[in-house]
Amino acid sequence: MSDLKLGIAGLGTVGVDVIRLLDDHAALLRKRTGRNVIVTAVSARSKSKDRGVDLSGYTWHDNPQAMVSDDNVDVIVELMGGAEGDALALVTAALAAGKPVVTANKALLAVNGHDVFAKAQNGLGYEAAVAGGIPIIKGLREGLSANDVKGVYGILNGTCNYILSEMSKTGRAFEDVLKEAQELGYAEADPTFDVDGIDAAHKTALLAALAFGGLPNFGAVDIKGIRAITPLDIKFAEELGYRIKLLGIARKTEQGIEQSVEPCLVPKTSPVASIEGALNAVYVDGDYVGKTLFVGAGAGGRATASAVVADIVDVARGQKLPPLGLTDDQTEDLPLADIHHRHGYYYLRLVVLDKPGVIADVSAILRDENVSLESVLQHGRAPDAPVPVILTTHETEEAAIRKVAERIAALEAVTEPPYLMRIEEFE
Amino acid sequence: MSDLKLGIAGLGTVGVDVIRLLDDHAALLRKRTGRNVIVTAVSARSKSKDRGVDLSGYTWHDNPQAMVSDDNVDVIVELMGGAEGDALALVTAALAAGKPVVTANKALLAVNGHDVFAKAQNGLGYEAAVAGGIPIIKGLREGLSANDVKGVYGILNGTCNYILSEMSKTGRAFEDVLKEAQELGYAEADPTFDVDGIDAAHKTALLAALAFGGLPNFGAVDIKGIRAITPLDIKFAEELGYRIKLLGIARKTEQGIEQSVEPCLVPKTSPVASIEGALNAVYVDGDYVGKTLFVGAGAGGRATASAVVADIVDVARGQKLPPLGLTDDQTEDLPLADIHHRHGYYYLRLVVLDKPGVIADVSAILRDENVSLESVLQHGRAPDAPVPVILTTHETEEAAIRKVAERIAALEAVTEPPYLMRIEEFE
Repeated sequence: MSDLKLGIAGLGTVGVDVIRLLDDHAALLRKRTGRNVIVTAVSARSKSKDRGVDLSGYTWHDNPQAMVSDDNVDVIVELMGGAEGDALALVTAALAAGKPVVTANKALLAVNGHDVFAKAQNGLGYEAAVAGGIPIIKGLREGLSANDVKGVYGILNGTCNYILSEMSKTGRAFEDVLKEAQELGYAEADPTFDVDGIDAAHKTALLAALAFGGLPNFGAVDIKGIRAITPLDIKFAEELGYRIKLLGIARKTEQGIEQSVEPCLVPKTSPVASIEGALNAVYVDGDYVGKTLFVGAGAGGRATASAVVADIVDVARGQKLPPLGLTDDQTEDLPLADIHHRHGYYYLRLVVLDKPGVIADVSAILRDENVSLESVLQHGRAPDAPVPVILTTHETEEAAIRKVAERIAALEAVTEPPYLMRIEEFE
Repeated sequence: MSDLKLGIAGLGTVGVDVIRLLDDHAALLRKRTGRNVIVTAVSARSKSKDRGVDLSGYTWHDNPQAMVSDDNVDVIVELMGGAEGDALALVTAALAAGKPVVTANKALLAVNGHDVFAKAQNGLGYEAAVAGGIPIIKGLREGLSANDVKGVYGILNGTCNYILSEMSKTGRAFEDVLKEAQELGYAEADPTFDVDGIDAAHKTALLAALAFGGLPNFGAVDIKGIRAITPLDIKFAEELGYRIKLLGIARKTEQGIEQSVEPCLVPKTSPVASIEGALNAVYVDGDYVGKTLFVGAGAGGRATASAVVADIVDVARGQKLPPLGLTDDQTEDLPLADIHHRHGYYYLRLVVLDKPGVIADVSAILRDENVSLESVLQHGRAPDAPVPVILTTHETEEAAIRKVAERIAALEAVTEPPYLMRIEEFE
C-alpha cells in the first residue's frame, strides 16, 4: 500500500516525540499497518530552533494551513494547542478539505467541539486529548460501545493530582507544594489552567460527549479548582476515611447529564484514592460491564505521542469512525442537568469563633434548609478564637447545601468563607 | 443501512446476556452503528430448556454449523466454549465461508489459534476471550498500537484472585476457601481449569500473541497454579512487604518472549496488589506510553456480553482489523524464550528439621549454584522438629534456583518439597 504522509503542526515536546516514535518504530508500524507511515511536512513558530531532531528531510511550512493544500500531506497532525487561532483555523480547513486530522488539543475540541465534531465525520482522532497515553477515547467509543454509561469519573490533571498527593503525604500547604512543583517542572509558571480545573474541565466535557453521545458543552461544566484546599481539609478527610482528589465527573441522571470538575472526598479504599502523583485515571461505570478503571501517564511527550500515533495507525489501517462513535444524531446537544439539582453527600469546613450560640445558629440554618448531618468534627477548644468545624451531611440536594454555605457565611461568628466539597462514595 | 443479522451458538449465561443486551440497547446500538443489530438464529444443546428469554422469534438450528450456510445470518457468535469439537468446527467453517466470527472462547484461540488466526484476516472478534469486560484486546491492538511492548502482566482468573484475596484476609487454608467459593458459585465443582492456572494460561498466550505480534503458543506457557500456597506463605509474604497474586506474564527479552502463569509475590504498594476479589487487571508496559493498567470484571454474563457486543458493534460499523493487528507476517510464530533462562528474584519456602548442620547444607547448595540470598526468615525454634524457613534471593537465573530447590529437596532433613515463587517488583 501507499505511504501515509503526515504533516505535523507544532513542534513542542509532543511533536518532537511523535517524530522520534515514528522513526524508532518505522518497522513495527509497517508490520501493524501494512504501509510506511512517514512525516513529509512540518510547521512551527521557529524554523531555526534546535529541537534535537533532524527536520531537514521535511518540507517546512511557515503557515501551518499550507499543509492542507500540500499534496504530499495525507493527514494533518495538529499539536499547536489553543482553543482558537491558528489551531482552529488549521483543523477547520483540513476537515473542510476532507483531510483526516489527528490532534491532542483538548481546549479546541472542548470549546469549539460543537462545530468541529459536526464537521468531522471524515476522521478526527483525539485519543491524546484526554488522559494522555491512556486509550480512553477508544476505550469508550469502541471497547465499551455496548454499554449505556451511567457515569465517568476521572483524575484528569496530573499537576493537581501531584499537588494533592504531596499535600497528603507531607501535610504541607498548597502554595508551598505548588512552588516546588513549578521548580521541578511539574507545574507551569502560570498554573491557572491546571490548578483552577480548566484543563480537567476540557477533558470532562469530551468524556461526557463520548460517553453519553452528544456534542461537547464546555460552558456547562461546573468548575472548581484546588487552591482553597488546606492541610486541615486533608487531615480531617483522612480522619473521616477519605482522600481528596480533583475529579472530572460526568453522570447521567433523569434530568440529564451532570458535568463538573471539583475536589472530592473519595474513600481511602476506593481505586481512585490510590492513584498517586502525576498519574491519570478514568473510572467508567457501564450498565453491562460494571465498573472499569483505566490508569496511566496523563501527560509527557512520550505518553502523549503514544496516543497521537495510535490515531495515526487508525488512519493508516483505514479505520474510520465518527469521532463520537455516532452515525446519526451527530449534531445533537447533550441534554444537560443543572448541577444544583444534584444529590449527594457533602463536606463543609467552617471556621467559627468558639463561643456559645454559634453552633445553634448553624444548626438552625441546616434545619431550615432541610439538610441533616452525618457528623460534626471539632478538635480542641479556643474560647472566643476562630476554630475549624467540619460538617458532613447525609444525602442532600446540592442547591440546599450551597444555600446553607451561603447563609452560614453571613453569620457574624464565621471568620472565613465556608468551604464545600462533595463526597463521592463510588457506590 | 441493512440490518446486521446474528447467529448465536451457545445459550449459557453469556449467550443469554448477549440476547438481553441487544434487546435492552437496540436503540443505542442503532445510534452507534447506523443499523439494526438483531439476532436471527440460535443454536444450543437443548431446545426446550427455559433460559428466561424468548427465543421464539429466532430460527433454531440443532446443528450450529447450519448457521454458516443460513443466508439470514451475517455474523457467527460462538459462545459454546471448548478448544475442540463443535466450537472449532463452527469457527473454522464460518471463517472458510467468509462470515465474520465473534467468540469468547479463549481455550479454542489459545490452543488452536495457530491455525485459526492464520485464516481469520476476514474478521474475528475475541475481546471477550481475555479479562471479560475489560477492553484489553482493543486496548493493545488499537489503543497502544504505537508501542513496542516490553511486558504484559495480568490477573486473569477471578476464581484464583478471589481465593488468594480471601486467604490473605482471613488466614484460612486453600482447600477451605476453595470449598466456600464452590458453595458461593465463585468456583466450579471441578476447579482444575481455574486453580491450576490453565484458564489464565489461555489468556496469557493470547495477550502475548497480541502484544508481541505472533501466533499464540499455548504449549509454551510455563504453568503453575495456586494449590500449593499455604497460609504460611501469605503470612511470610506479608511480613516481607508483598501480596501473592496469580499472574499471567508475557515479557520480551533478548532471547525471545517469556510466557508463564504462576503465583508471584508483588509489592503491597504496587497497583496489582490492590486488585481484590473476582476482579481482573492487565498491566501493560509500553516503551512510549509507560505503565498502564486496565481493571474490571473478568467474568460474569453481563460483563462478558459487554465485550461480545463491542465486537459485534465493530462488525456493524465496518471496522475490520486483522485479529492480531498485523497485516503482514500474520503466520509468523512468536520467538519464544526458555523460561529457565529468565532472571529475577525468588521466594523459596523450605520445611526442615531444626537441627545442627541443615542450614550449612542448604548454604552449600546455594553457593554451588551461585545463588545469593537477600533474606532468611525463621520464626521460633523447635529442636529436631520440622520448621519453615523462608529464603529470598538476589537476582538469579531461574534454572539455578530451580536446581537449588531440587537439590534441597533431596536433603535428608528436608521434610516437604521446597516451594518456589517468583518475586515481581514491577520496576
